[in-house]
Amino acid sequence: MALVSAMALTGRTLPVVHRCLRASGAIIPGSQLISNFRCFSYNMAVPDAKTGLLFRQMFDRDTCTYTYLLGDRETAEAVLIDPVIELAARDVALLNQLNLSLKYVVNTHMHADHITGSGLLKLLVPGCQSMIAEASNADADIKLKAGDIVRFGQQELQVRSTPGHTSGCVTYVMHEHSLAFTGDALLIGGCGRTDFQEGCSETLYKSVHTQIFTLPQHYALYPAHDYQGLTVTSVEEEKKHNPRLGRSLKEFVQIMEDLKMPYPRKIDASLPANKVCGLYNLPDDLAAILKDAS
Amino acid sequence: MALVSAMALTGRTLPVVHRCLRASGAIIPGSQLISNFRCFSYNMAVPDAKTGLLFRQMFDRDTCTYTYLLGDRETAEAVLIDPVIELAARDVALLNQLNLSLKYVVNTHMHADHITGSGLLKLLVPGCQSMIAEASNADADIKLKAGDIVRFGQQELQVRSTPGHTSGCVTYVMHEHSLAFTGDALLIGGCGRTDFQEGCSETLYKSVHTQIFTLPQHYALYPAHDYQGLTVTSVEEEKKHNPRLGRSLKEFVQIMEDLKMPYPRKIDASLPANKVCGLYNLPDDLAAILKDAS
Repeated sequence: MALVSAMALTGRTLPVVHRCLRASGAIIPGSQLISNFRCFSYNMAVPDAKTGLLFRQMFDRDTCTYTYLLGDRETAEAVLIDPVIELAARDVALLNQLNLSLKYVVNTHMHADHITGSGLLKLLVPGCQSMIAEASNADADIKLKAGDIVRFGQQELQVRSTPGHTSGCVTYVMHEHSLAFTGDALLIGGCGRTDFQEGCSETLYKSVHTQIFTLPQHYALYPAHDYQGLTVTSVEEEKKHNPRLGRSLKEFVQIMEDLKMPYPRKIDASLPANKVCGLYNLPDDLAAILKDAS
Repeated sequence: MALVSAMALTGRTLPVVHRCLRASGAIIPGSQLISNFRCFSYNMAVPDAKTGLLFRQMFDRDTCTYTYLLGDRETAEAVLIDPVIELAARDVALLNQLNLSLKYVVNTHMHADHITGSGLLKLLVPGCQSMIAEASNADADIKLKAGDIVRFGQQELQVRSTPGHTSGCVTYVMHEHSLAFTGDALLIGGCGRTDFQEGCSETLYKSVHTQIFTLPQHYALYPAHDYQGLTVTSVEEEKKHNPRLGRSLKEFVQIMEDLKMPYPRKIDASLPANKVCGLYNLPDDLAAILKDAS
């Protein structure tokens, strides 16, 4: 865990990390047993026979964003969570190859690091609707509140309000599949920053501890980003090993204050566009793509 | 499918891809039904209760390499498939966090695009053993042949010989979990190049068609790389949609001949090092990491 903390918090170089790892004894398997063993099906190449869910995780190398495709076997209805505008064509190609019909394009929050694919996908797949939390103050066809259920075929996403990174951050929970999409509220061994866009460390800590860490231990957690190439974690792992959120509120607030992160690279282009589904106020190159698709 | 082909084969820019997509009608869900529906558990945040497998997929952004961690619930024994030297510390941290003990470091082939983490992992986790195909002509503690079984706890990897990208390429099949790790023999909507390192298009085509496409349709296929951010595919999808390997042998050979790919960026550093487990002949920065760990 010392190693994970060191990497997550400081982004140290590999030789330094190696020294931490050796000094901490992390190279000897530790005592933190991940204890929950349940039958669990997800990230499926083919749909699960019992629950009818098809699940694909996709990655944007530029912004380290994960986009999730969820499809229902019976109805072929599908949703995309957190698509990226530059990769909308990839997402549509996969939907098509899997013979799925896009019903909703869903965002976990108004992103500051990339422009959402929502608007472009609405052009490419006429009839699909965009969704985002009402509290995000962004436009969408459907505005979500805590407790809402997003339905596609037999599948359900439960909306949980998890503000703190932004005011409109939500986590989508699929209880039948024991998994949740945490957006930027909880990252693997980390969390979204809280130093802009209405961010508040106290609020984020409370959100994660009351809305995510209260889920059963074995629930899989899928974040909106990972910068180390990890793909998934679990409630149990994050409660035990998250070097920020696993600590006390006071310690967490101090850690977040000490981060002193640089100004987000794409925020000036992303926020105005994401307020309107990524449909307007785009940089020239992306505006051209949109024009081309419309 | 036209879109996938266009993207995979030509790397066209997004506006061009969009035009292809619209022209081909790919934005309307097609008729290629992915028909197999089985209960299927993998890429698990927690181990599967019935089969005791814990599965994590990890990514290297620099070389687009996937590393796989497989753990056995009963014994806590684990293997890593295709680790990358720069990310060995990440892999060890995750093994440790999951309370797994690394038994084998397994390569699908002698890579030309990155240096294997095998040697560094052997230093960081004393006692683990490296594995590679005998036909690769690379050093390893254990040299594998077609038909061999790699055992860790109750889990088994069946070794299938799938040469063509290199002479020593193998595919590891986990029949109990209906999945296979295809290395560079089969990529998602693509395949490894055949223009260097004993590559041979005819051989690769035969390997994939006799050793991978003969697996049940619903088997999930995990490649050694993906350059578009996709994570997994299935036998059925690749047989139907792979724009290279889904064609005739003659067409495939022509497609591969026409690729005219640039000289591999890291091949001059990778091959000499990977012949000896990534332990010697390293570039200076990586040699320093190794010295630091030993």
